[in-house]
Amino acid sequence: MQVLPSALENLIEELGKLPGVGPRTAERYAFFLLKRGPDQVSSLSAALKDIHSKIAYCPKTFALIEKGEIISNLYKAPGRDKKLVAVVEDPLDIAAIEKTGYYKGTYHVLGGVLSPIDNIGPDELHIKELIGRIKEDKVKEVIIATNPTIEGESTALYIQKLLAGKSVKITRLARGLPAGADIEYADQITLSRALQERQLF
Amino acid sequence: MQVLPSALENLIEELGKLPGVGPRTAERYAFFLLKRGPDQVSSLSAALKDIHSKIAYCPKTFALIEKGEIISNLYKAPGRDKKLVAVVEDPLDIAAIEKTGYYKGTYHVLGGVLSPIDNIGPDELHIKELIGRIKEDKVKEVIIATNPTIEGESTALYIQKLLAGKSVKITRLARGLPAGADIEYADQITLSRALQERQLF
Repeated sequence: MQVLPSALENLIEELGKLPGVGPRTAERYAFFLLKRGPDQVSSLSAALKDIHSKIAYCPKTFALIEKGEIISNLYKAPGRDKKLVAVVEDPLDIAAIEKTGYYKGTYHVLGGVLSPIDNIGPDELHIKELIGRIKEDKVKEVIIATNPTIEGESTALYIQKLLAGKSVKITRLARGLPAGADIEYADQITLSRALQERQLF
Repeated sequence: MQVLPSALENLIEELGKLPGVGPRTAERYAFFLLKRGPDQVSSLSAALKDIHSKIAYCPKTFALIEKGEIISNLYKAPGRDKKLVAVVEDPLDIAAIEKTGYYKGTYHVLGGVLSPIDNIGPDELHIKELIGRIKEDKVKEVIIATNPTIEGESTALYIQKLLAGKSVKITRLARGLPAGADIEYADQITLSRALQERQLF
């Protein structure tokens, strides 16, 4: 016998497709939304509808932009150094770097990482466009800011090799102990990198 | 400078209203939905729209029913013992009890628990209707199946006192060690209840 109405089962199933959301969490979300009035649910529903109709990708940096904008603000703004490019995996990485308030260069979103298992090779990422930008904007430094994961590291290595011949400085984000970490609990890889890349005081 | 398009910021804000979802998780959900095609997002959006238009409350048991159904299947089905009523806090508790496959009585959803802080008194819960059902259906046993929390327990106590004079058996779910638990790690309250309510082998 069906215990929950099919509209609720359906919503639970849809919410269960979100990353890291199991059936229990999906039930909790669905029930929460049911308890809220139709107003709150329709504002979520409207927000969902907008993301594909109102968001576009910048053709230069592949950052997310408002549909109708021609190019990313983080590229065209006069304060932005177009000769310095940070290469990131996805647009949320830009938001994280911007929050530091420290970086004044521009960005280039790869749109993922090399992953042979998922059939993602160099052609699936915006690497060709990066090389185009380096030439066009006379880029002096490329900061490879991929995640410190296996895929991120191998993507970084691939780009580093590809750019090796060109007259552009290639750097990557420093590795070491994160702020507030406890050396006692640091993993071996992090700790060995922190030792290898130790800095003069 | 705004880093993310406003449609994405908006979706992140809406998703952040879900229970237990912080800004980071909301970002992750929003970005996941952005990466999926519009099809998957519109099926979630449609599922959201349906919950308020296609779901109703059973006027007898206050369980969730399909709009158009007159009364809950779990009440009207011939195999269901109307003289046995399990009183639960909310409709998802019904789904949990049904999954056991053990219970053949009917349900009564309170729609919450007594909580003076949130201004929820007996009149906000479906207690009056429970008393009506006891009379109407000549109920023999009421199983109080509220959660073993402070609010759940005090709601259970309130109902138990209210029904004390009537010729109806009042029971509640057994307390004790959950399956697979480790006595060493059991909390004091659970363990003392397991001792108090020990059973003959």
